[in-house]
Amino acid sequence: MTDKAIGDFGLIGLAVMGQNLLLNVADHKEFNVVAFNRTVAKVDRFMDNEAKDYKNIEGAHSMEEFVLKLKKPRRIMLLVMAGKPVDDFITALLPFVEKGDIIIDGGNSHFPDTNRRTRSLAEKGIRFVGTGVSGGEEGARYGPSLMPGGNEEAWPYIKDIFQSISAKSDGEPCCDWVGDQGAGHYVKMVHNGIEYGDMQLICEAYDIMKRGLGLSAKEMADVFAEWNKGVLDSFLIEITRDVLRFDDDDGTPLVEKILDSAGQKGTGKWTAINALDLGMPVTLIGEAVFARCLSSLKQERGRAAGVLAGPTPKFDGDKKKFLADLEQALYASKIISYAQGFMLIQNAAKEYKWKLNKPSIALMWRGGCIIRSVFLKDITSAYRKNPDLENLLFDDFFNKAIHKAQDGWRDIVSKGALWGIPTPAFSTALSWYDGYRTKDLPANLLQAQRDYFGAHTFRIKPDHASEKYPEGKDNHVNWTGRGGDVSASTYQA
Amino acid sequence: MTDKAIGDFGLIGLAVMGQNLLLNVADHKEFNVVAFNRTVAKVDRFMDNEAKDYKNIEGAHSMEEFVLKLKKPRRIMLLVMAGKPVDDFITALLPFVEKGDIIIDGGNSHFPDTNRRTRSLAEKGIRFVGTGVSGGEEGARYGPSLMPGGNEEAWPYIKDIFQSISAKSDGEPCCDWVGDQGAGHYVKMVHNGIEYGDMQLICEAYDIMKRGLGLSAKEMADVFAEWNKGVLDSFLIEITRDVLRFDDDDGTPLVEKILDSAGQKGTGKWTAINALDLGMPVTLIGEAVFARCLSSLKQERGRAAGVLAGPTPKFDGDKKKFLADLEQALYASKIISYAQGFMLIQNAAKEYKWKLNKPSIALMWRGGCIIRSVFLKDITSAYRKNPDLENLLFDDFFNKAIHKAQDGWRDIVSKGALWGIPTPAFSTALSWYDGYRTKDLPANLLQAQRDYFGAHTFRIKPDHASEKYPEGKDNHVNWTGRGGDVSASTYQA
Repeated sequence: MTDKAIGDFGLIGLAVMGQNLLLNVADHKEFNVVAFNRTVAKVDRFMDNEAKDYKNIEGAHSMEEFVLKLKKPRRIMLLVMAGKPVDDFITALLPFVEKGDIIIDGGNSHFPDTNRRTRSLAEKGIRFVGTGVSGGEEGARYGPSLMPGGNEEAWPYIKDIFQSISAKSDGEPCCDWVGDQGAGHYVKMVHNGIEYGDMQLICEAYDIMKRGLGLSAKEMADVFAEWNKGVLDSFLIEITRDVLRFDDDDGTPLVEKILDSAGQKGTGKWTAINALDLGMPVTLIGEAVFARCLSSLKQERGRAAGVLAGPTPKFDGDKKKFLADLEQALYASKIISYAQGFMLIQNAAKEYKWKLNKPSIALMWRGGCIIRSVFLKDITSAYRKNPDLENLLFDDFFNKAIHKAQDGWRDIVSKGALWGIPTPAFSTALSWYDGYRTKDLPANLLQAQRDYFGAHTFRIKPDHASEKYPEGKDNHVNWTGRGGDVSASTYQA
Repeated sequence: MTDKAIGDFGLIGLAVMGQNLLLNVADHKEFNVVAFNRTVAKVDRFMDNEAKDYKNIEGAHSMEEFVLKLKKPRRIMLLVMAGKPVDDFITALLPFVEKGDIIIDGGNSHFPDTNRRTRSLAEKGIRFVGTGVSGGEEGARYGPSLMPGGNEEAWPYIKDIFQSISAKSDGEPCCDWVGDQGAGHYVKMVHNGIEYGDMQLICEAYDIMKRGLGLSAKEMADVFAEWNKGVLDSFLIEITRDVLRFDDDDGTPLVEKILDSAGQKGTGKWTAINALDLGMPVTLIGEAVFARCLSSLKQERGRAAGVLAGPTPKFDGDKKKFLADLEQALYASKIISYAQGFMLIQNAAKEYKWKLNKPSIALMWRGGCIIRSVFLKDITSAYRKNPDLENLLFDDFFNKAIHKAQDGWRDIVSKGALWGIPTPAFSTALSWYDGYRTKDLPANLLQAQRDYFGAHTFRIKPDHASEKYPEGKDNHVNWTGRGGDVSASTYQA
């Protein structure tokens, strides 16, 4: 490459993810790529090492040089820390870019930031894209799941590169246009939330096998290996198998020595908070986040273990049957988690007025990312068959699957409670299933209570509507016979 | 009263709550009170009706007149809608008040707003107080629970009035200084979250009795009446009894006709979001909020009920024993919910650097408010015995109570799962209890997974520390034997 503007794609941010994604692009010889990093020495180090055999990679030593090396409309991707650094780099780019140029944020940005950036850059004629990138370092290098959203005008210019470098599933790229503004980052956020849920479910299964059945790490690895051939076939089950087989130097499983205090980077929390904000019952991700919080109270739990007793699990049934039930419990809970996740996405699209392509979302998660699985192929099929599917559980395949799974699932949740082994995610999934399929929940009592003490009013069930309590009207009753006939209006206690 | 400044207490906002609180103050003849409302006609209506027999109430017809009628330092309380109206009234008051005057916000303000207002008014020499007020209209009239926080300089000037009008519990006022800045509104927020939890627990018990045992509304009322004589003795159990006994004109229970679609005003949601933000596992309130969300999907649930099957509850045991277990399940879950709530408050105090008085908080909730109960007397005792109690479950009384309750509790959760009756709050409480008392949770596997796919590193259990994996250090392992030896730093997938 020369100093002329022949770069097809520029990337700023040469941490592991940035380097790997750039090498991934450069593996496609039809693209010339330009690399830049704030600490310029890193550019040279990268050019002299990882990039040295690539004729189609060039380093830049200033923002201006970087921009001038790119063909118009310029395609510039940032892979830097979410938050202020993204705004700082955008500000630094603005003097050099021109109308029509494209800036892509590939970090884990919070979607409201992407909404804001898309709008404010559109006013300047710059096309902004916020894209989810999943799959970790290895995904970035050899095929990530990419979830771009933002200014749709940019899509025709980046589609070719994005779909070339992304993972493929059955020949189809795990990358498609997600939707307006922050929709790409939103879908990535929910992906991460679902990842929290999947991991928590696996942990509960592991805990039950370990403390309930007394299985060894190797025996559990064999179970996960077996599960990985069936409906649970997925990256996370596969690595769980490998983790359980990995021995420390002393020949004992390393996993058992690892501190049980889970970290988090915040995207799971964002998902749960967004679910609360939108009023959508995404309970499984909520419990998964809280389970990590509880795990991190390691010291306090140690003290609690000394003063709080519980039952001792006693298993004397058919182990094979129990393990089959456990597999079904995990599978059913996973179906619920994805059903909740898609409900959330669906609702967000309505709330934020985004057009979304649901079959594509499932397909984008099908390969390349942490939650990749055979399962997502079934979800893709479900949404291809019916893009307006109200809920995953209304699809024939999942409807049958959950019905088949439920006996085993119920037995596991029941055993967990009796044995004293916590199953927050299995349990909340089951409660949600039972709540969702219940025409008449006990919230009628709750509405009566609220009307009783706060005059918050209630509505009447349509088949019980009367002149006194008409349908669709806010009714108030003087439950006590004294005072309180005024319904709460201005002031809400 | 005359036009001279002889008012001891001024109140702005004559909706039901404001009127009632003002009459409550005026019932104490030693206080002269002044009333104002933005729509001035409402002042005259109030003076001519509700206030007409009170010699110590005076109305004002302008903000200036209102302020001038008050003795210095002026004590001015706002009972207006939370949000912008509070800021608007403060702005409108500023030209007339003087250094040292006190402005009190008694609405359901979000605590960060109260933090901000306390700080910005302190700069102007105005002492700002944000107070939680609970107990609904009747509480406001005859004795609310009051939870004031903010600028502590104000406390000596308002203590007398506040403790005079508040509810009393065993002779002690259910009002004390909570803490700095938004601490009062914070504690009120958590109170409301706990209220959500209590109501959800009652609903689950009702649902199990109704669908599991097939009890009638009257039979259930009798059960709640019975429970109201024991450890569950509380306002919410009492009104549940009354609600279940309340018949419509046709002689059938009204509650069964009420639409099972729960409303919410947002404070429960705020609590759950704050718990997520602080990383505290306040799971029961979370599930209670989500249960309301699920209930509000009434139409969708109706459709789901048509295609999603479940078991039919079959009960053939000892009904009396089962009801005793159910009582214990409710009681144990309630203990967990309050333990979680106090953990949250404790953590918030640390995070926001507030000094808090825990025994007082329990005492403030003991009477006057929606969650008032005998139970809160036991919590008050626990914190009086040991203000630094790490967790309610470490107190002897609650420790014994939960141990006694757990067999019944486990049985109910297990039955709920097998019967297909949702128990999200009972279940999450039990899972939390079992997680909290577990020294080694399965989060070790989760940390191994995170290190495997994202190089997120892990720590080692102290008793397994080695030269290779030292204690307190972030360790990373090359799980696959290929690539991935660099730990994730800048970019977090």
